Amino acid sequence: MSATKNLAIVGATGAVGIELLKVLERRAFAVGRLRLLASPRSTGKTLEFRNEFVSVEPLRSDSFKGIDIALFSAGAGISSEFAPLAVKAGVVVVDNSSAFRMDPTVPLVVPEINGDDVRGHSGIIANPNCTTAITLMALYPLHRAFGVRRIIAASYQAVSGSGARAIDELRRQIAATAADQDPIPEVYPHQIVSNVIPRIDSVLDNGYTREEMKLQNEGQRILHHPDFRASVTCVRVPVFRSHSVAVSAEFERSVDLEVARAALISFPGLDLKDDPAADIYPMPIQTGGTDRCAVGRLRRDVAFENGLSFWVSGDQLLKGAALNAVQIAELL
Amino acid sequence: MSATKNLAIVGATGAVGIELLKVLERRAFAVGRLRLLASPRSTGKTLEFRNEFVSVEPLRSDSFKGIDIALFSAGAGISSEFAPLAVKAGVVVVDNSSAFRMDPTVPLVVPEINGDDVRGHSGIIANPNCTTAITLMALYPLHRAFGVRRIIAASYQAVSGSGARAIDELRRQIAATAADQDPIPEVYPHQIVSNVIPRIDSVLDNGYTREEMKLQNEGQRILHHPDFRASVTCVRVPVFRSHSVAVSAEFERSVDLEVARAALISFPGLDLKDDPAADIYPMPIQTGGTDRCAVGRLRRDVAFENGLSFWVSGDQLLKGAALNAVQIAELL
Repeated sequence: MSATKNLAIVGATGAVGIELLKVLERRAFAVGRLRLLASPRSTGKTLEFRNEFVSVEPLRSDSFKGIDIALFSAGAGISSEFAPLAVKAGVVVVDNSSAFRMDPTVPLVVPEINGDDVRGHSGIIANPNCTTAITLMALYPLHRAFGVRRIIAASYQAVSGSGARAIDELRRQIAATAADQDPIPEVYPHQIVSNVIPRIDSVLDNGYTREEMKLQNEGQRILHHPDFRASVTCVRVPVFRSHSVAVSAEFERSVDLEVARAALISFPGLDLKDDPAADIYPMPIQTGGTDRCAVGRLRRDVAFENGLSFWVSGDQLLKGAALNAVQIAELL
Repeated sequence: MSATKNLAIVGATGAVGIELLKVLERRAFAVGRLRLLASPRSTGKTLEFRNEFVSVEPLRSDSFKGIDIALFSAGAGISSEFAPLAVKAGVVVVDNSSAFRMDPTVPLVVPEINGDDVRGHSGIIANPNCTTAITLMALYPLHRAFGVRRIIAASYQAVSGSGARAIDELRRQIAATAADQDPIPEVYPHQIVSNVIPRIDSVLDNGYTREEMKLQNEGQRILHHPDFRASVTCVRVPVFRSHSVAVSAEFERSVDLEVARAALISFPGLDLKDDPAADIYPMPIQTGGTDRCAVGRLRRDVAFENGLSFWVSGDQLLKGAALNAVQIAELL
């Protein structure tokens, strides 16, 4: 293939789709032809890319002719239906949905962690769940140093994870609260302003939600560590953008804080922000809109023998979605 | 002592002080004389109690003459200085600050858990930290059933925990966001609207905050369980009122979900709200303003052998402060 790639973006008008365009621009990705695909209700819209306006076309089975790489971000249903069609047309698909993440023939990749896995693809490469990608960005360097056995984690997930309509909903509910009116929930089952909602995605038989089990299930594949255990509580919080996660991790080997710090500092895409007494710690208002994840609140865990507690934050739309997808495309 | 008690409230104009008055009213506490005490800058204010207006007086060393019980909620400094003076004047002090919680001669009490400990007091009884009280309301019935060894917890703490000025700050920052203006932080070191702040209270040498270690330190005393371990991350979230906590607990004995549910349902002051598929789980918008704590998201933990994960929510100003203090006073 030539250095320039013809790209399709499926779900171009969604919250992640918009970010994909910005990331491609910012990283000067060598885009040849660009095709923006979305549902028929977005037809007629145009989106700006490198000072040109590109029309949004309805996604169809023949949308992939002449395309080299398709970045999918329109939900698992669309991916299940259209990704195989794209592959048949000779396209390499980077899929941001959950449709193929647990398919053993599909690499599931965070480039900084298991970028080499991309080589084994047969047409589709899966982009991990946002909370998984962000948590593993901090956990993986510690895992390399000490060998992780299990983690307990609780997430503080921004409304951006539910898409553009949820961002509007929080904005509307903030306006309602400021005007002393009742906040009306539409996207979420309960109000999200001045509230936290301890359920994301559907509930499984074991009582965890699908979202909560992703960290263990996807983590095992990305870390190449089938015994990795993760007990997670995923919670939606009234934050516009950027997820945060509180993690207690238990390791095989004894942990040393200086070794841990050095491992985190030298890891690409990650900043150590760890001076809590001076109020320096990762926060969504700082990681929002940035490519880099941040880790802090590093401390020896008081409940695990070989344990570390830490706090990680990252932009759900970027490292949790669009950035990671473009990084995968760059590996191709 | 007679059935009617002469009461003093120290810190009467604060967020907890206001709730103390409402709780005393609602529970028909047999109040004889009521003295409202606060800092000199509140002098001249009046507060309503049972349809009468009571003047706020400046706190002085001789404020406690003729008082039977004093409810302190004005910070550890005020308690350290004035509680011993009150005791000397023959008053029993119920202290909501952290000043005496770790003093082995001072009972630290959640009435539903260790109400009998009140008997051993020598003038002061301590009210636990809010997150500790709310978490233990759900943990204790499970501990009785299975014997807790350790927990990993992450909190979602409302701004009410930082007092009336912090409630105003969130309100102001919501208004600023609605008006497309920058939210200005005054009480907190960073904006709290659309953000989460992973530091509450001062940072200790072990890297945990003082707030985070309270659950282990106070929990050991309340549960009479010196080996209890708790690794906690305490996080401020943009919620007006009511704290929530995600907990993974490991027990000595094997756990049974039905036994766990029965233990939680029969515990006083606690509601089981546990049908996540139907979007029934504890939330701050529901526990806020109510006396009862709520527990849900109950599931066998995937990372602990004899483990349970759960989610608990309770009003920080009520069970986390004013209600628990009045319940202690009722035991006297």
